Amino acid sequence: MSLLETINSPADLKKLTLSELPILAQEIREIIVNVVSKNGGHLASSLGVVELTIAIHYVFDAPDDNIVWDVGHQTYAHKLLTGRRDQFHTLRKHYGLSGFVKRSENSCDSFSTGHSGTSISAALGMSCAKSILNDPSKIIAVIGDGSMTAGLAYEGLNQAGDLNKDLIVILNDNDMSISPNVGALSSFLSRKFSAKYLQDLRKDLKVFLKSLPKVGDDIYQIAKRSEDSFKTFVTPGMLIEAFNFDYFGPINGHNLEHLINILENIKTLQEPVLLHVRTTKGKGYQPAEENPVYFHGVGCFEVQTGCCLPASDNIPTYTEVFGNTLIDMAEKDKDIIAVTAAMPEGTGLVEFAEKYPDRFFDVGIAEQHGVTFAAGMASEGLKPVVAIYSTFLQRAYDQILHDVCLEALPVVFALDRGGIVGEDGPTHNGLFDFSYLRSLPNMTVMAPKDENEFQRMLRTAIDHNGPIAVRYPRGKGTGIELSDDILPLTIGKGEVLSAGGDILILAVGRTVCESLNAQTILKKQGISATVVNCRFVKPIDTDLICPLAESIKRIITVEEHVLHGGFGSAVLETLVENNITDFSIKRLGIPDLFVEHGPQSVLRSKYGIDSSAITDAAVKLISSSENNVSTSKKTA
Amino acid sequence: MSLLETINSPADLKKLTLSELPILAQEIREIIVNVVSKNGGHLASSLGVVELTIAIHYVFDAPDDNIVWDVGHQTYAHKLLTGRRDQFHTLRKHYGLSGFVKRSENSCDSFSTGHSGTSISAALGMSCAKSILNDPSKIIAVIGDGSMTAGLAYEGLNQAGDLNKDLIVILNDNDMSISPNVGALSSFLSRKFSAKYLQDLRKDLKVFLKSLPKVGDDIYQIAKRSEDSFKTFVTPGMLIEAFNFDYFGPINGHNLEHLINILENIKTLQEPVLLHVRTTKGKGYQPAEENPVYFHGVGCFEVQTGCCLPASDNIPTYTEVFGNTLIDMAEKDKDIIAVTAAMPEGTGLVEFAEKYPDRFFDVGIAEQHGVTFAAGMASEGLKPVVAIYSTFLQRAYDQILHDVCLEALPVVFALDRGGIVGEDGPTHNGLFDFSYLRSLPNMTVMAPKDENEFQRMLRTAIDHNGPIAVRYPRGKGTGIELSDDILPLTIGKGEVLSAGGDILILAVGRTVCESLNAQTILKKQGISATVVNCRFVKPIDTDLICPLAESIKRIITVEEHVLHGGFGSAVLETLVENNITDFSIKRLGIPDLFVEHGPQSVLRSKYGIDSSAITDAAVKLISSSENNVSTSKKTA
Repeated sequence: MSLLETINSPADLKKLTLSELPILAQEIREIIVNVVSKNGGHLASSLGVVELTIAIHYVFDAPDDNIVWDVGHQTYAHKLLTGRRDQFHTLRKHYGLSGFVKRSENSCDSFSTGHSGTSISAALGMSCAKSILNDPSKIIAVIGDGSMTAGLAYEGLNQAGDLNKDLIVILNDNDMSISPNVGALSSFLSRKFSAKYLQDLRKDLKVFLKSLPKVGDDIYQIAKRSEDSFKTFVTPGMLIEAFNFDYFGPINGHNLEHLINILENIKTLQEPVLLHVRTTKGKGYQPAEENPVYFHGVGCFEVQTGCCLPASDNIPTYTEVFGNTLIDMAEKDKDIIAVTAAMPEGTGLVEFAEKYPDRFFDVGIAEQHGVTFAAGMASEGLKPVVAIYSTFLQRAYDQILHDVCLEALPVVFALDRGGIVGEDGPTHNGLFDFSYLRSLPNMTVMAPKDENEFQRMLRTAIDHNGPIAVRYPRGKGTGIELSDDILPLTIGKGEVLSAGGDILILAVGRTVCESLNAQTILKKQGISATVVNCRFVKPIDTDLICPLAESIKRIITVEEHVLHGGFGSAVLETLVENNITDFSIKRLGIPDLFVEHGPQSVLRSKYGIDSSAITDAAVKLISSSENNVSTSKKTA
Repeated sequence: MSLLETINSPADLKKLTLSELPILAQEIREIIVNVVSKNGGHLASSLGVVELTIAIHYVFDAPDDNIVWDVGHQTYAHKLLTGRRDQFHTLRKHYGLSGFVKRSENSCDSFSTGHSGTSISAALGMSCAKSILNDPSKIIAVIGDGSMTAGLAYEGLNQAGDLNKDLIVILNDNDMSISPNVGALSSFLSRKFSAKYLQDLRKDLKVFLKSLPKVGDDIYQIAKRSEDSFKTFVTPGMLIEAFNFDYFGPINGHNLEHLINILENIKTLQEPVLLHVRTTKGKGYQPAEENPVYFHGVGCFEVQTGCCLPASDNIPTYTEVFGNTLIDMAEKDKDIIAVTAAMPEGTGLVEFAEKYPDRFFDVGIAEQHGVTFAAGMASEGLKPVVAIYSTFLQRAYDQILHDVCLEALPVVFALDRGGIVGEDGPTHNGLFDFSYLRSLPNMTVMAPKDENEFQRMLRTAIDHNGPIAVRYPRGKGTGIELSDDILPLTIGKGEVLSAGGDILILAVGRTVCESLNAQTILKKQGISATVVNCRFVKPIDTDLICPLAESIKRIITVEEHVLHGGFGSAVLETLVENNITDFSIKRLGIPDLFVEHGPQSVLRSKYGIDSSAITDAAVKLISSSENNVSTSKKTA
């Protein structure tokens, strides 16, 4: 029996001796690598915090003490130690364990998350609540240095220092967020600090330290051991203490004994404390240590070699098409600028960054700033393309509205991962963007039916003199040939893909293909469908849709998006605005809930937005309207 | 002729001698006080930066150089110096000058704004753009210390230091945002700094400073002049330099000569520079200096005394009702917590804060953090009420979705200033909240018809075990008597206020009163209307609405909200979901544009959401449907 098999709750962990813990860490790593190699997942970050996770659970008492993980993708060891060992093989599978932290999954998951930078704010809220409720238990927020570039984390840190509550923040510093890190604070932490002021300070630190009445000489002895720790001593601590936190560290996050000792000490304090822990992403699995960016979020791979399983075909992903197309366009148009928020790999901009380093800006995990920054560039006449996943762009909603749309600045929003994202689940689904974007004045919203149309939409967006968004799905395109001659589309104009008098299917984005498949199936059943690729969620193609709706009268709208306020809702608005009300309509889309994690195709089927659901809806609509006709005939 | 009358552009300002500038400052102050006393406006902040504004325009060349004002409410002197003197009396009037910065108003307004914390990001974008375009002109961002609590400002500062571009940030430090300031950074700037680490550092600073090879002794001489400046020297500079900015200051922001000197020096640098300027809010107008919070945003007042003009009646504002009701409820329910974002006065929570200091949290201008902080509290079983203006809550959209709705945590959102806010204009209108909230799973959205129903909605919200929002207008209630016995409403249930067979008016929020007035007018014309107070935008009262729509068939929806994805859109969704399509409908609401500033009543009339617009729509709907009936009779 392995050590891990004896642990059914954090209480069991405490029965192990200190010397057994490194063995446990090894067991945990093996399971993580094994399961992630099969299921995919966030490998590098989870491997980096194995010892830290063990130490936290060894010292603190979850679920009484709250551990608030930032982002939550580094919690595989946490899951294994909190009663989820036997389900761990279901990680990221449909109905299996979530790849993130989820309150409804386990009582030790004290705050659900998937986005960056929420942990300090949530933990501070908990700390204030516990103080009001006279609950003496502890709260530990664990946040990566990458998340610290998020304004939300700063806002939380800022108030935490001010309120002076009992709160432990563990800064998990691995010198990178997803890609290598961005920003002044990051330089600070990674000791590349070189501001003139502190350089001067450092020069004379020796004298200064020696002059401290009691401790000076000791501190100097420690500090001078290496230039490296010397700088470290000066900088991160200073900044953190400026926020009124007591600063401890930096310490080696893979040394269990040190970790446990310092956590035991910190546990006795009742004030804002920050423990700075240095970890190595991918620790203990060589391929991940060597390539932590690749192994941040990874698909299936071969454990022995770390090689990913070969792709079954050569169809490019939308992300790849985006990156390649933007490079081509940027070659001819010097005004094109690419902006990403800590996601050069995820958004397909690595090659763009290499080719046009002066026109590429990675703003870090700081979507709000990224959008306002782009607005500033647009106000000077450049053409910024902001590439951010749909779910993360939610964080810049006000900046899109207030800084871009208000003055109709020409910023292009490339929303990758629009729709159901699959295994990452509810925190990462991009199911709200049509709704949150289309209500904004001056905004144009598009979604392509395939990767070739996607290229054309990018051309359209670049040519457009105003805010414009193109939203595209996670994963591969349809395999259609990519045209070299990329023509822009007419704003607000859709296209009829098949003509038929029985039913009108209005689709947008990847549901267009599903609709065409449905049309083929329906045809075999003797039902003829008009399929419209609407292309634009805003402005809706009223001139095309209204006459079709008036003549066909049985309408299906289909979208990979929530039904509340989405594309179908925009169609309804247009129809009634044009006094067309004599129709039957079925709006297909996501009902009023958060879609769980699981394979995209399974979820599309479950939530009724695939070709089979469209077919069923068409058949039902026709039979019910025939019933209505016969009913009305009867009553007539 | 006054000096100001000679200035038609910033170029004219440069013709004045240094000794004339204080006279100009005095003239500017008089005009500002005079106009604001008549038109209302942001007095204290605009008075505080008169000298700073003169100095900036004296040294730099707008519009070639870009001045990026944060928030933009402090720009009255800027307006007077940039060719808008003759229109200044129209400040905040309909079709007059905006109370904020607006690109379309003047070429010297380089970036439109109204919300906090955008200036550094926008300025950095401009700086990067100018660098790409080889434009050597300068960019100056002016940001208040209050705005520095916004995560967006931090994100901008963080990357600005990293990119090392030519950028001047002027920190306008008046020790307060709107209310006295919040957070560790603020303590830093306001010299209340007391972290142990830096206290130790300070103790020995003397030795340290003297030891600096060349400049040490001089700096020490300057620093030791007062304890105050001594601390200042150590702290803000250190923090700012940590962000890789060159730090200058703090200097007296009312000393024109010093300001101009230092700006001339800074102008020659080509790197990130932060100039720390100390100003007094309300400077030069005694009532405003004495009560800067009151005179932050003020209505009409008597110049001589500073007394505001007496209210014409005793009808309470929604804000007042909110504050009073929450105090009453909090007395009986110890779990109720109030959270505001730098707006205790604006949201009516001052008395609550005095009465329950331990259950009141002002998070500063940090809406994102405020919401996630509340989610943390809710996760521990408390009942946080987050009171934030509708427009500012936009900034926490992702936190509402990801941190509150995803796990259905019981957080109450009190959205003050929902709808048209009037003189503050497009940056402040709360016209998107129905849309951005109702698409979120687990969310409930309400809007009261009057202040008594508002009390009941607050009760309902407190009792509800999930995310719930109540949105209410800026300004006075209807004058209805406030019931002492506050009963909760049934979630998702509306009420019929008048019954009539000719037309169905579905209203929510303050449009309910307009609808009742319309009903009275229509009655006189022989048209009988059913008026429904829907109360809930989500969930919509399907059981009530559908049968009425089926029988009356002529429907008007009316909302003080954009039409795209709003309440009327939710009604449409419900009707067709229930297979009701045989109706005529007119959705009244705000079209697809940003509503300008002006009196609320004028704008409500202009955009067709008042009783007269409802009446007209009803008459038109009836006559057109009668035509349709006669047409169909003819064709039949």
